[in-house]
Amino acid sequence: MTFTCDRDILFEAVNTVIKTVPAKSAVSVLEGIYIEVCTDKTIKLIGSDTDISTEIIFECESVTENQKMLLPAKKFYEMVSKMNSGEVYFEYEPKKILHINCGVVKYDIPVMDADLYPVIPIVERKEKIIISKSVFSDIVKKTVFSVAQNDAKPILRGELFDIEENSITAVTTDQFRLSVSKKEFNNESGKNFSMVIPGKTLSDVIKIIKQDDTDIVINCAHTHVLFEFDNVKVTSNLLAGEFSNYKNVMPKNFKTEVTLNTAELKKVLERASVLTNEKIKNPLKLSIEEETVVFSCRTPDGMSFLDETFAKINGEKFEIGFNDKFLLDVINVIEEEEITIYMNSPISPACIRPVGNENDIFLISPIKIRNNDN
Amino acid sequence: MTFTCDRDILFEAVNTVIKTVPAKSAVSVLEGIYIEVCTDKTIKLIGSDTDISTEIIFECESVTENQKMLLPAKKFYEMVSKMNSGEVYFEYEPKKILHINCGVVKYDIPVMDADLYPVIPIVERKEKIIISKSVFSDIVKKTVFSVAQNDAKPILRGELFDIEENSITAVTTDQFRLSVSKKEFNNESGKNFSMVIPGKTLSDVIKIIKQDDTDIVINCAHTHVLFEFDNVKVTSNLLAGEFSNYKNVMPKNFKTEVTLNTAELKKVLERASVLTNEKIKNPLKLSIEEETVVFSCRTPDGMSFLDETFAKINGEKFEIGFNDKFLLDVINVIEEEEITIYMNSPISPACIRPVGNENDIFLISPIKIRNNDN
Repeated sequence: MTFTCDRDILFEAVNTVIKTVPAKSAVSVLEGIYIEVCTDKTIKLIGSDTDISTEIIFECESVTENQKMLLPAKKFYEMVSKMNSGEVYFEYEPKKILHINCGVVKYDIPVMDADLYPVIPIVERKEKIIISKSVFSDIVKKTVFSVAQNDAKPILRGELFDIEENSITAVTTDQFRLSVSKKEFNNESGKNFSMVIPGKTLSDVIKIIKQDDTDIVINCAHTHVLFEFDNVKVTSNLLAGEFSNYKNVMPKNFKTEVTLNTAELKKVLERASVLTNEKIKNPLKLSIEEETVVFSCRTPDGMSFLDETFAKINGEKFEIGFNDKFLLDVINVIEEEEITIYMNSPISPACIRPVGNENDIFLISPIKIRNNDN
Repeated sequence: MTFTCDRDILFEAVNTVIKTVPAKSAVSVLEGIYIEVCTDKTIKLIGSDTDISTEIIFECESVTENQKMLLPAKKFYEMVSKMNSGEVYFEYEPKKILHINCGVVKYDIPVMDADLYPVIPIVERKEKIIISKSVFSDIVKKTVFSVAQNDAKPILRGELFDIEENSITAVTTDQFRLSVSKKEFNNESGKNFSMVIPGKTLSDVIKIIKQDDTDIVINCAHTHVLFEFDNVKVTSNLLAGEFSNYKNVMPKNFKTEVTLNTAELKKVLERASVLTNEKIKNPLKLSIEEETVVFSCRTPDGMSFLDETFAKINGEKFEIGFNDKFLLDVINVIEEEEITIYMNSPISPACIRPVGNENDIFLISPIKIRNNDN
């Protein structure tokens, strides 16, 4: 059984599906790339870790018969990556070896039994939205960093997408912070619904999407979601359960507003990060003064940091402590020149909003400052 | 006690000495940077792992008294790296805390006892050569990759420098391969001598040297070597013992000469590397034919590779096996367009020379090809 295809198209396809192939898996077939060649001149490649699967279909030529096979993903990727551009000729020896020729280069690679590969669930396309890739990528990037990293509440390992009229709202929370990004879009179906997609799925999809001005179609069924874009399909499980009601936790009024230059604040936070690390979680103290915010922190081993930056301040002045990493995560996704921190007291959640952007809101719980901290 | 210095000069100095500070050491003082401030307006910084020490001296201002101190290297480096350009003001509280101010940024850092820091050996400057930095870097880069990585023969963890008349020859061998790079230079002392410098020292020095057209001074004593360049001094132990006589192992005549395009050969070797890894050390077989060399290898798990490249061939034709990693290490340091492989038989060492370059020679022992290998 033989077929041919273009090396550059093949490489792009392998480079796409390998992003959802686990490097190591207890189920060894998952370390493979599934290939299905058809006499209608198409090749389908699939990479999957069972929770999330990526499928890509492209053209091939001179297919002598239909054939399924499973190749070791990493080795196959490396082989194709090292080939020159041009036509790749494949010759399959049933259940044994695939010969791959490109110019004078020949690789033989052992083929695993494709029948052992898991079946990708068929998503019945209950609800569907069509949204521009750039809008979708933007709301995911602005929120995915605060997906919960542990299983204390499994639903929080996902990101809520709330479709209401012509708006889509993405929400993540790890119970210490909450990120919300909302965008208008043309909701063709007119239906309101919501779904919770695993954070890992979204990170993978963002990596695979080519940034151009085309759309992504998101099909949502009861238990699964199917993303369709370019010639790629990504299927993932959905998370079941009740996501925190993000609208209730958002404070309505604030006693203090502090507006800061985003780039200046980023520099301060990077300087503070010298003193903090995974082990030492001393809070970064913000002292709100007349026209400046003074930042300070101190470690148990005698190091301390002090910095200040100009700020436009309205309302009550007080001291408040934060995890500096949480502030930096937010600042890293904000493109606007200035941000405003809205606060009520040193023990109530603070709300960060980019100035002139009504769509993105970041809520962070403060850390209590003990006397010996600062 | 107070002093000031320029942030950018300080950062460059810290960034230099930290390269010889071990990230982790059983001797905790070695994780520090030693600082000596003098009222003659100089600061000396030292970073050392005891085998190799880097010292840098630069100007400071407003020194109120002489002071030695020892700072945690990594934290001090990070603090300085995050400061803006400008004047840095230091205030030392005896045996406790160093206050560092730059603009509105203030860091406090605990100071360790400088008396515990090891004494850097004074090198009595018995022999001395002065050589351009670029020539020195070049011969080191062309040879240091084949320094022995284990202690089977400790002397081979070093690199031999042989100074004869107006030439310097650098030699390394791990007993499976030998690399030699020779350069002419103006040997002012006129003396012939040799020394064996640890490979790690040379890798560190190459990292620290700024590539410009100034010289490096290498002072050699009985047990130590001192490199002087810019405002930097690097002191290292020398290795004692008898280095292999590289002149004796070099074959005089060859039965076969194969000339290949360097870039083409590099591509072939990178393609072959897909099949080989640290665990699988099957040889890459070179079959020397009329006007081509055919490269092939095979793994125990059924993968195989075949490629060929045009070659100018003189002499006997045969098959010979090599560790593809050894060939790639050589090709990666060769700048010439073509190389010639000189061979006598499948079991005698092959000699690789860049075409048109009489100074660099690389000897590689072949690997015996078993019948089931290829």
